[in-house]
Amino acid sequence: MHAYRTHSCSALRESDAGQIVRLSGWVHSKRDHGGLLFIDLRDHTGVTQIVIPAGTPLLDIAEKLRVESVITVTGEVVAREGGQRNPNLPTGDIELRAREIAVQSAAQVLPFQIAGTEHYPEELRLRYRYLDLRREKMQRNIRLRSAVIASLRRRMTALGFTEFQTPILTASSPEGARDFLVPARLHPGKFYALPQAPQQFKQLAMVAGFDRYFQIAPCFRDEASRADRSPGEFYQLDLEMAFATQEDVFAVLEDVLGGVFAEFGGGRDVTQAPFPRIPYDESMKLYGSDKPDLRNPLKIADVTEAFAGSGFGLFAKIAAGGGEVRAIPAPGAGDRPRGFFDKLNTWARESGAGGLGYIIFEADGGKGPIARNLEPERAEAIRAACGLKAGDAVFFAAGNGAEVVKFSGLVRTKIAQELGLVEENAFRFCWIVDFPMYEVNEETGAIDFSHNPFSMPQGGLDALNTRDPLTVKAYQYDIVCNGVELSSGAIRNHLPEVMVRAFEIAGYTAADVEERFGGMLNAFRFGAPPHGGSAPGVDRMVMLLADEPNIREVTLFPLNQGGEDLMMGAPAPLEPARLKELSLAVLPPKPKAVVAPDAGSGAGPDAGKN
Amino acid sequence: MHAYRTHSCSALRESDAGQIVRLSGWVHSKRDHGGLLFIDLRDHTGVTQIVIPAGTPLLDIAEKLRVESVITVTGEVVAREGGQRNPNLPTGDIELRAREIAVQSAAQVLPFQIAGTEHYPEELRLRYRYLDLRREKMQRNIRLRSAVIASLRRRMTALGFTEFQTPILTASSPEGARDFLVPARLHPGKFYALPQAPQQFKQLAMVAGFDRYFQIAPCFRDEASRADRSPGEFYQLDLEMAFATQEDVFAVLEDVLGGVFAEFGGGRDVTQAPFPRIPYDESMKLYGSDKPDLRNPLKIADVTEAFAGSGFGLFAKIAAGGGEVRAIPAPGAGDRPRGFFDKLNTWARESGAGGLGYIIFEADGGKGPIARNLEPERAEAIRAACGLKAGDAVFFAAGNGAEVVKFSGLVRTKIAQELGLVEENAFRFCWIVDFPMYEVNEETGAIDFSHNPFSMPQGGLDALNTRDPLTVKAYQYDIVCNGVELSSGAIRNHLPEVMVRAFEIAGYTAADVEERFGGMLNAFRFGAPPHGGSAPGVDRMVMLLADEPNIREVTLFPLNQGGEDLMMGAPAPLEPARLKELSLAVLPPKPKAVVAPDAGSGAGPDAGKN
Repeated sequence: MHAYRTHSCSALRESDAGQIVRLSGWVHSKRDHGGLLFIDLRDHTGVTQIVIPAGTPLLDIAEKLRVESVITVTGEVVAREGGQRNPNLPTGDIELRAREIAVQSAAQVLPFQIAGTEHYPEELRLRYRYLDLRREKMQRNIRLRSAVIASLRRRMTALGFTEFQTPILTASSPEGARDFLVPARLHPGKFYALPQAPQQFKQLAMVAGFDRYFQIAPCFRDEASRADRSPGEFYQLDLEMAFATQEDVFAVLEDVLGGVFAEFGGGRDVTQAPFPRIPYDESMKLYGSDKPDLRNPLKIADVTEAFAGSGFGLFAKIAAGGGEVRAIPAPGAGDRPRGFFDKLNTWARESGAGGLGYIIFEADGGKGPIARNLEPERAEAIRAACGLKAGDAVFFAAGNGAEVVKFSGLVRTKIAQELGLVEENAFRFCWIVDFPMYEVNEETGAIDFSHNPFSMPQGGLDALNTRDPLTVKAYQYDIVCNGVELSSGAIRNHLPEVMVRAFEIAGYTAADVEERFGGMLNAFRFGAPPHGGSAPGVDRMVMLLADEPNIREVTLFPLNQGGEDLMMGAPAPLEPARLKELSLAVLPPKPKAVVAPDAGSGAGPDAGKN
Repeated sequence: MHAYRTHSCSALRESDAGQIVRLSGWVHSKRDHGGLLFIDLRDHTGVTQIVIPAGTPLLDIAEKLRVESVITVTGEVVAREGGQRNPNLPTGDIELRAREIAVQSAAQVLPFQIAGTEHYPEELRLRYRYLDLRREKMQRNIRLRSAVIASLRRRMTALGFTEFQTPILTASSPEGARDFLVPARLHPGKFYALPQAPQQFKQLAMVAGFDRYFQIAPCFRDEASRADRSPGEFYQLDLEMAFATQEDVFAVLEDVLGGVFAEFGGGRDVTQAPFPRIPYDESMKLYGSDKPDLRNPLKIADVTEAFAGSGFGLFAKIAAGGGEVRAIPAPGAGDRPRGFFDKLNTWARESGAGGLGYIIFEADGGKGPIARNLEPERAEAIRAACGLKAGDAVFFAAGNGAEVVKFSGLVRTKIAQELGLVEENAFRFCWIVDFPMYEVNEETGAIDFSHNPFSMPQGGLDALNTRDPLTVKAYQYDIVCNGVELSSGAIRNHLPEVMVRAFEIAGYTAADVEERFGGMLNAFRFGAPPHGGSAPGVDRMVMLLADEPNIREVTLFPLNQGGEDLMMGAPAPLEPARLKELSLAVLPPKPKAVVAPDAGSGAGPDAGKN
């Protein structure tokens, strides 16, 4: 017989009755029933009930055991009496009558309970993560994460991709965020950087002829913690394809992500491929966001025209001043009490807007404060533009430029939530495409890259040379699920002369470009295939699937929000000898040191996302 | 038709003749045949011959192309004439008659040739790694590495293991080597460490109830480069099992490694499971090493007794002084000329020994300088001890303790090589077991851990309390293949009281142990399962399979031996603002700075290997 177990704690059934078996696990709970002692013995698969017969020396051992002690029990499988059966437990038809108990590890009093679903402070949970992870939800979340990653690998491999490992000790890269740095002991004063993403390496792998690369890649950004991003490290499904068009990349990710969400979505409905492609401009118009949540059926309408020169002075003035009025439909909201509209108005003010105007449509036309000052045919035009009918209402966001776009998006989300219009139990994917290559820097008035300077401009060199840069689009795309951006991606600019020209438009000389990105440019001068890719965040996928808003709930051993590992004691001071070995000295703390704001290092464009 | 390709460069066959297809790839070579131009177009799958017809504008484009330019060719598949067929090429029965050529990327003159097998300096290859990787051998090696890793994952999963990611930004660990460190910007003066191995995390995963963990784990050691270890980072198949005995761990690795070596060994014979288990003491005796190459059939014999009090004064004196004489058989060496023995004697002197004595066995007894001074019955005893016959010879290593053991191992290897006795085309695995828990520190005379202080001592607390520590063995084991240690491993000590006692024997107080390893000890106090594991090096496996003695030949983007990435320019100096942000200053270089020797940080035992 094996020293520790012949079966797992979920394996035994009535057909095993009479067998002598051995189980090992944790004492999940203990119950005393008039001399008989019952133990629920737990392992990673489930629970088996152990019975310690009265009047045996085993009872003495068992009585002393604290919960969460680890024991090995040898005994006979016994079928339970009818009334004793537990139909909720796979092993509920049997129990194990103990003949021997070996205590493998006696537990002390625990800092919190493992059994049950009580909430404990996160700091306590992280300090004793090895206990926290024994709890049912955490076991489920972490195993889900592993299963998702294994499935991603399987699916990528099936599509002809090969996983390659790129370096972790590498050079600082021209990404937007701040690198973590590693002093190079043998090169005093020099540092390695941990990769923010293997962007350059995957592109070089294409130049090297590896054709279809992927990696479940650890990435590192020295940024403040966010709910959806660990401080420090995170994982992405990094992929790149040679000789690929944008549609080729889409086909791969629709297959892989669509498949994974269907596999692990627990029956929630998943957008069928092909996922909707929404041009960036259209997304900003219809959804007030480049990350639209398509579970929300509402579409925003531009009703500036309807208010231009109208009797509703506030909006007429905004329209006259070059601003916009956007209408957010609220189907079925017509019969809501006045308080509903007042509450939304308060919310809008708290969100920084002036208020939230509205029209209620009744059979005989628009009602409410705005409608009172608006010509009926204009109200009718708004109703028609929004596709509404009597009994519906419409809300308005008005203002200038980016402000009104953003606020209309917030209103769209809020209204759908308030009216219960958001589709439940669904994963709604879309692609946002045709991102603008350039934008006007609001501070300087100069032309700047709007997203990724290394994307291929649509129309290539010709477009750059002949068109208004602000009208040039890039082969750049985001994939969005339920309003969460899983990744941006792009067809890359693999042509040195196009890259130099693209940077020239954004104010960089050819010499600047050579100096900053010479390594990559040189590689492209020895025969580079057209290529593109993306890098969906693994943590975000798992968060969506597990329905967890906090990344630490789907990470095995996360840092806390302050970037500390409370269990292992990291970060920690160094012994002076180690510091010296690295040719480093720690600066004395400044009086009242101000923590640097969390921005990029300030040098260069926000490059290489994806 | 796809923008870049309808087929890969290895796909087309005679049955495709007449089709219009599109291929993309690199210009591998060009040949001009009287107006016709032939291009071998290469992608990651193979090569297709392109024909550019004479008298077309295409010829002009094609003539200007340098090799390694990337092109897309559209044309008609044409069956080759009988004499033109190339049976060595999968596509050798056809060629593609070009109708359109699109130059995707024009190559400049290359720093070295991609086609062919010429050798170039490693620094040049690493600087242009993206070109070096296009070469056939590198494509094969790197793809082999990926395939091996995928197979390891598949096999581990099939055995019920789950892959979990452990942190990369973590705490300094009590391993033997030096950590790489990462300054924590938000915690001035504090540092994260990169993991030398996820040793503590995998043990905590067992405490957390995850039962069977594995990870293709990136590991980091700030050590000087060796041929078989990258400076900086390397990968291991990290694994750990709860409720497992040593034999359980062996069964897993015999299945997984045996399977991988059979899968990728190219027909080389692989040791069948169960692999031989060789106790450490026996390995040192029979093979003069704890990493025996079992392709070598020679076994060393202890013949001290045969020389004790004998007429051969040198060895008699060594035997009398407590030294040892070890015999290394040399079957069939009897008819070698005198020069053979002289050359080995010279080799031995160059290796630091006094020389290499020998006896040649003929039908009428031993011959040679030693035999002349040795009583015939003693020579006969040696012959019998070594299992030799007339026509064979035997060599001797004599001296004290570790010295003679090591030298006898060297002689064993040398003799087998010289006599051509090493089995070819085979992977010979074995386990080295029963490592001693303690040894005498030769410098201090004190009792020290001999390998891993966290292994479970055989016999547990009782053995520690009652036996001479130098006779206590540990549940610690190495797996060795062809003389290469792939990994050490152990059943861990999960019992706080046994751990405290084990350290006490090595001179640590309970308070020391709590201070250094309190995190782990505490975890073991809340119910820890018995557990054990191992961590075979992935790079070493791939090196064995690819028959490459240099790890950089099986790594995609390696650092050079000086720990530099010549392609990306790492490590690099930091901008002063970044340094300041990290609260660090670089110390000015000392005049004639001495590079620190490559040793551990000097603090604590060589802990946590595996």
